[in-house]
Amino acid sequence: MTAKRKPKVGIGLVGSGFMGRCHANAFRSVAGLFDVAAEPELRVLADATDDLAARAAATLGFARGTGDWNELVDADDVDIVAITAPNVLHAPIANAAAAAGKTVYCEKPLSTTAEAALEMTRAAEAAGVVTLVGFNFLRNPMIRLAREIIDSGEIGEVTGFRGRHAENYMADPDAPHSFRTDPQGGGALADIGSHIISMARFLLGPIDEVQGECRTLHATRPAEPGSHERLPVEVDDMTHALVRFASGVSGSLEANWAATGRTMDLSWEITGTRGALAFSQEAMNELLLYSNAPGRRGFTRIEAGPAHPPYGRFCPAPGHHLGFNDLKVIEVADLLTAHAGGPAVGPDFREAYEVQRTVEAIQSSSATRRWVSLRPGP
Amino acid sequence: MTAKRKPKVGIGLVGSGFMGRCHANAFRSVAGLFDVAAEPELRVLADATDDLAARAAATLGFARGTGDWNELVDADDVDIVAITAPNVLHAPIANAAAAAGKTVYCEKPLSTTAEAALEMTRAAEAAGVVTLVGFNFLRNPMIRLAREIIDSGEIGEVTGFRGRHAENYMADPDAPHSFRTDPQGGGALADIGSHIISMARFLLGPIDEVQGECRTLHATRPAEPGSHERLPVEVDDMTHALVRFASGVSGSLEANWAATGRTMDLSWEITGTRGALAFSQEAMNELLLYSNAPGRRGFTRIEAGPAHPPYGRFCPAPGHHLGFNDLKVIEVADLLTAHAGGPAVGPDFREAYEVQRTVEAIQSSSATRRWVSLRPGP
Amino acid sequence: MTAKRKPKVGIGLVGSGFMGRCHANAFRSVAGLFDVAAEPELRVLADATDDLAARAAATLGFARGTGDWNELVDADDVDIVAITAPNVLHAPIANAAAAAGKTVYCEKPLSTTAEAALEMTRAAEAAGVVTLVGFNFLRNPMIRLAREIIDSGEIGEVTGFRGRHAENYMADPDAPHSFRTDPQGGGALADIGSHIISMARFLLGPIDEVQGECRTLHATRPAEPGSHERLPVEVDDMTHALVRFASGVSGSLEANWAATGRTMDLSWEITGTRGALAFSQEAMNELLLYSNAPGRRGFTRIEAGPAHPPYGRFCPAPGHHLGFNDLKVIEVADLLTAHAGGPAVGPDFREAYEVQRTVEAIQSSSATRRWVSLRPGP
Amino acid sequence: MTAKRKPKVGIGLVGSGFMGRCHANAFRSVAGLFDVAAEPELRVLADATDDLAARAAATLGFARGTGDWNELVDADDVDIVAITAPNVLHAPIANAAAAAGKTVYCEKPLSTTAEAALEMTRAAEAAGVVTLVGFNFLRNPMIRLAREIIDSGEIGEVTGFRGRHAENYMADPDAPHSFRTDPQGGGALADIGSHIISMARFLLGPIDEVQGECRTLHATRPAEPGSHERLPVEVDDMTHALVRFASGVSGSLEANWAATGRTMDLSWEITGTRGALAFSQEAMNELLLYSNAPGRRGFTRIEAGPAHPPYGRFCPAPGHHLGFNDLKVIEVADLLTAHAGGPAVGPDFREAYEVQRTVEAIQSSSATRRWVSLRPGP
Ligand SMILES: NC(=O)C1=CN([C@@H]2O[C@H](COP(=O)(O)OP(=O)(O)OC[C@H]3O[C@@H](n4cnc5c(N)ncnc54)[C@H](O)[C@@H]3O)[C@@H](O)[C@H]2O)C=CC1
Ligand SMILES: NC(=O)C1=CN([C@@H]2O[C@H](COP(=O)(O)OP(=O)(O)OC[C@H]3O[C@@H](n4cnc5c(N)ncnc54)[C@H](O)[C@@H]3O)[C@@H](O)[C@H]2O)C=CC1
Ligand SMILES: NC(=O)C1=CN([C@@H]2O[C@H](COP(=O)(O)OP(=O)(O)OC[C@H]3O[C@@H](n4cnc5c(N)ncnc54)[C@H](O)[C@@H]3O)[C@@H](O)[C@H]2O)C=CC1
Ligand SMILES: NC(=O)C1=CN([C@@H]2O[C@H](COP(=O)(O)OP(=O)(O)OC[C@H]3O[C@@H](n4cnc5c(N)ncnc54)[C@H](O)[C@@H]3O)[C@@H](O)[C@H]2O)C=CC1
Repeated sequence: MTAKRKPKVGIGLVGSGFMGRCHANAFRSVAGLFDVAAEPELRVLADATDDLAARAAATLGFARGTGDWNELVDADDVDIVAITAPNVLHAPIANAAAAAGKTVYCEKPLSTTAEAALEMTRAAEAAGVVTLVGFNFLRNPMIRLAREIIDSGEIGEVTGFRGRHAENYMADPDAPHSFRTDPQGGGALADIGSHIISMARFLLGPIDEVQGECRTLHATRPAEPGSHERLPVEVDDMTHALVRFASGVSGSLEANWAATGRTMDLSWEITGTRGALAFSQEAMNELLLYSNAPGRRGFTRIEAGPAHPPYGRFCPAPGHHLGFNDLKVIEVADLLTAHAGGPAVGPDFREAYEVQRTVEAIQSSSATRRWVSLRPGP
Repeated sequence: MTAKRKPKVGIGLVGSGFMGRCHANAFRSVAGLFDVAAEPELRVLADATDDLAARAAATLGFARGTGDWNELVDADDVDIVAITAPNVLHAPIANAAAAAGKTVYCEKPLSTTAEAALEMTRAAEAAGVVTLVGFNFLRNPMIRLAREIIDSGEIGEVTGFRGRHAENYMADPDAPHSFRTDPQGGGALADIGSHIISMARFLLGPIDEVQGECRTLHATRPAEPGSHERLPVEVDDMTHALVRFASGVSGSLEANWAATGRTMDLSWEITGTRGALAFSQEAMNELLLYSNAPGRRGFTRIEAGPAHPPYGRFCPAPGHHLGFNDLKVIEVADLLTAHAGGPAVGPDFREAYEVQRTVEAIQSSSATRRWVSLRPGP
Repeated sequence: MTAKRKPKVGIGLVGSGFMGRCHANAFRSVAGLFDVAAEPELRVLADATDDLAARAAATLGFARGTGDWNELVDADDVDIVAITAPNVLHAPIANAAAAAGKTVYCEKPLSTTAEAALEMTRAAEAAGVVTLVGFNFLRNPMIRLAREIIDSGEIGEVTGFRGRHAENYMADPDAPHSFRTDPQGGGALADIGSHIISMARFLLGPIDEVQGECRTLHATRPAEPGSHERLPVEVDDMTHALVRFASGVSGSLEANWAATGRTMDLSWEITGTRGALAFSQEAMNELLLYSNAPGRRGFTRIEAGPAHPPYGRFCPAPGHHLGFNDLKVIEVADLLTAHAGGPAVGPDFREAYEVQRTVEAIQSSSATRRWVSLRPGP
Repeated sequence: MTAKRKPKVGIGLVGSGFMGRCHANAFRSVAGLFDVAAEPELRVLADATDDLAARAAATLGFARGTGDWNELVDADDVDIVAITAPNVLHAPIANAAAAAGKTVYCEKPLSTTAEAALEMTRAAEAAGVVTLVGFNFLRNPMIRLAREIIDSGEIGEVTGFRGRHAENYMADPDAPHSFRTDPQGGGALADIGSHIISMARFLLGPIDEVQGECRTLHATRPAEPGSHERLPVEVDDMTHALVRFASGVSGSLEANWAATGRTMDLSWEITGTRGALAFSQEAMNELLLYSNAPGRRGFTRIEAGPAHPPYGRFCPAPGHHLGFNDLKVIEVADLLTAHAGGPAVGPDFREAYEVQRTVEAIQSSSATRRWVSLRPGP
């Protein structure tokens, strides 16, 4: 008995590196796990050259490859343009895709400057296309649970925040330059600080004022992998900042890609008048909840399980652990819902622009050594 | 530029429950992550009825469904038969598949009795087909690392073992009967004890002698989900056992599906004369290593990363966490390698038979209250 | 204004090694922390020779020293005899002290054989003296809390137990012989296994049946510290056992002094039909409680604090951590209460005899490879 | 044989609350654990009234009590004046004690203002007396180990710092006013922030520049315990700050006494170019060390043991856990060494003044919203 096949939605992917592979995997998996409106079909992969693209297409299972992303954007059979190319390419590709009426799914940070990000936002809004930006850590069921707990008032009024995204991939002074160290949109704060900023905003709302210090720990780095030529570094390796949310809550955050010993410490603690929450991506399948309610006080380690959607999509039994790539599958499921006209869960381009604006405000506060306000002007 | 497509290998899947979905996902994902010889194509899904099968095929992305697994086994376009049906069906399906010359990929426990498992083993060996049994936890890069560390002598001579697989899915006395409580092949020891036994064997070699106690904690359970009729339980909810390995090492193990509070405590500690190792599936992305070597003593928490193959297939950065479903993807990648004539990494049917023999020896020791030997006869 | 001094109680201490120092410290501290009926005065210290005793008395603050413990036992100004000498001396000293009408405070294990322990028990009971045995880990406020939680039914009916006392102080094959390896009363099971047995009994009541395996991991050890002569080892380095409590609960326990990597893993997990408890002395200031009660499931890490008596005697603020020596202070406070006619909280000699009987039953089950019953005869 | 008694040193203690009891216990214990030059004799206890003092003297074992601390300071038989009275009394008592030529042992914070602390420092230096301030957390063997590791270069050049002292004892808006909320010297930053500042200085040297935000979370508090009258709060409940050390290292710190869920999170993480260290007082018996050295990367959990002096003074076996009160015993042992003319390990009054200056700089930066320099003037 031939199975009824779902309708198809055509995927075009630009880039096939770290994130490219991760997107491709998510598009392959999603329809077997989620009840999607349409099943992704991997149609076009664009990379820097035709050759690279052809090989990547074969590896990742795309029907064809191209060395020119314009071709991908213009292809009739591409409905969703996924952008996992270096940051500097996000704006031109996204703008072209929006103009072509495509759903645009772009990796973070949205662009290299807040100004460019705002332009992208306006272009997409004008075109009326669906947008989604790859802040995948927000997809964790434990983060959704945290948000619900906060919104419900279960921990009382929020009193403080302490957050961080610390990794060590640039701790080695001989880690070379790349698009990540490009003064346009690079540095630890833009690269991974954007994750903790987006999460802070998701959980506690807009940030109003910042005062940070951006530090370059290694003054020079090899020009290329393995090269002997060393070029100066103009971006931060580590940033510490004070933040004040529009709600009045204050706290601190850190972005650090030279945090020796840490590989994925995207972590935070939120205190309230009646309870507290703590999370680290190093233990991504649990959320710590402290409650002052009558009873035995202490942090309860809530383990991810089917009680925390969409965990059950992956496994009917608790404790079986989602992994990093699963977060991207959830993101893609949400993307397909929005693409099909369902609720757009975000973060969309506008939200990603706000994150980028926050990054730049911290950078500017570091330069001027003053608090910088992010409040919307009059 | 059209991408060069890989050759295809036809997949037939029997069952579409917990494990069926997990297998399907692994077959969908694997070719985008691993450099497989042939790309799986989801061709036939068999379930209890035509209707169930048709719906599952549509959901999971199989080309067609059937209510008769014989049809699947006989299908010319099915190269690999994956069995995720209840235990009692493993033998007939596997034997038929082997007779048809198919690669047989069967969920654990291999069968309902050691005798049946031995017959399956002989049938498959006679047919000369590739077999693989779904002890997916062995695929964890951290478990491979543990095995390497033990084999290298880094922790000295092994002196002790303490292992456990504890979950809580049957802790509730109102959790109903299912194939898991069938006296043929059911019970905590057969269901999940088989995982810790297979892991113990993988790490430390054959178990020679056992003395266990199998306990039924809840004397009756509902006949069906939600039913008021209660039927007696004839299988164990919790088993504790003493074990002695052929190497002379001794220790203990536990199988427990009524371990309130535990959802995935497949854990062990192995001590040696110069070091020790500890692992729990609750923290599946880390391995604890203690070394007596000169320096600062203490357990080092080694985090999974690209240094531990095949982690890098999923992510180029350490600390990003594999999840439970990723283990199945690795298993399927190994299966495809063996199917294509590459090295068979096991565990094959024979190994799974040995696991089952160990399960039965423990059950028998509990009944006779004597140590039971597993040593091969003269 | 001269302070009203408390009445004094005279202390005699036999032995000044590891435990001798610990007892002395507890006697010095207790009156400033607890509201004791009488303040301990350190009067006589006995050691192996006059010289050793004199030096230890000066170091630990005793008024005088003696090389003959009989003198201490007979001294009129000694009210409480504390025994921290090697195990073989416990019986003669305790019996003499009881005969002299003194309160007897003896280190564990009570004696070298269950038979001797029973004689000591009878002698003390006949003399009507207060006895207390140094199972200090029972004094932990978290252990009292665990007992209360179990007794209250908060975790439902107890279904399973898994316990262990694992350290590594004899892991090195060159760790020499000492009283700890004396076939009379020595070995890992008697030395530290007695701690987890006493705790299991404290929490869950008498153990009824056992089946264990005692293993000697290192066949010979140096005769003396540093000596080249090696003598055979007749005691166990590691014992694993199955246990069944009189209540019907079953489980396992381990005693291991060759557990590379572990320094104080006196730990257990107790599951019930409605909750679970877990504890390890490695994190002695916390108790993990899992509750099935409506709400957010997960283990709650309860931290020791003033809510858990007698923590508040040491510190008015939670989270400030008691240490190992503080447990001895609590033990001594309880001793002084009993000595002054207050409630005797135990464990007294009879309880310690029961622990020793359990040790011997496990040893005997290992020799005969049969389950051994501990049930009182008809 | 009468034991040779050590010479005595006379102790006068002002205050008998939380810290008073802790000091008294340390003075009682120290001579049985450490090889001290002279044994403390508890001679005079001063409290707010004669009556309070008499009762506290009896409880804590002092020979006499007095309602007038001047009497204590002037007493011929008092050699060391220990100050555990409210902060506002530190200066007058310490200055009088110094003038009387006594060794002065004062609780933190040294005084209510940096100015007063500087005067105290000058008075003590002019008098040439030994001073010590009760930053007891520095006494932890794990902290000494951390300092050694940093100084040895084992973790390379230090690149970042992230520290915190968070507790929850003022999280409740109904926690009343006390000397801790006195605008003179009160607030979370002065009260407990001083601990993390002293530790940061101990580990990484002077702090050069700060920018903080001090927040009052609860605008009013009851005037007295249980009172209905509520008075405004003028001190901070929570402070977040950016810090830059004289060495060039930068980072952040937090002081928070309203951190729901935290009872003793005095914690920090220090990253270096070749390794990292992490510590929390919540797990005070361990230090986490990450090393980039060839081998298996990961944080190693070093457990406190005899290898880390003066742990062995308390226990010959590793893993047996020191407690909070033991830190005070170590502090007192160091005090007695300095009093007897041995090396003064500090922190002395001058160091405590520097801590207080840092506290005030952060407060001032919060008021002016500018970075504040702590560099010594030209
Ligand atoms: N959400 C997350 O957790 C993560 C997001 N990212 C983001 O993903 C994006 C890509 O980062 P990675 O995958 O790590 O980089 P990568 O360097 O691994 O991959 C970049 C890919 O873009 C391709 N590319 C370069 N120029 C191109 C062009 N002109 N046309 C088409 N393709 C071109 C490269 O050949 C390569 O395949 C970045 O924006 C980054 O910030 C990266 C890692 C994690
Ligand atoms: N490796 C692992 O970690 C796990 C392995 N398992 C194993 O997987 C197997 C299946 O278990 P679950 O998926 O949990 O069970 P399940 O009850 O969720 O799924 C069983 C599937 O088999 C189908 N089925 C029943 N009768 C059939 C028939 N006559 N023909 C074809 N299909 C039939 C059912 O309709 C259902 O789709 C078992 O052997 C179990 O031990 C289960 C869970 C985890
Ligand atoms: N409760 C607990 O946690 C612990 C209990 N213990 C128990 O404490 C007892 C002593 O053990 P340790 O202190 O570790 O031993 P140790 O070897 O450190 O000290 C034994 C002391 O007894 C003295 N001694 C030997 N012969 C003597 C004699 N004829 N008269 C008087 N004194 C004599 C020795 O000189 C030494 O001072 C043992 O029964 C042991 O099982 C030991 C360690 C921990
Ligand atoms: N090092 C540490 O970890 C800690 C240090 N402290 C410090 O210790 C000091 C005392 O704090 P707590 O013991 O918590 O306070 P507390 O309120 O518990 O005790 C204060 C004591 O001073 C007495 N006192 C008040 N007026 C007096 C007077 N005129 N003359 C003599 N005694 C008088 C009180 O009666 C009471 O006995 C403070 O400086 C505090 O910052 C407090 C707690 C922890």
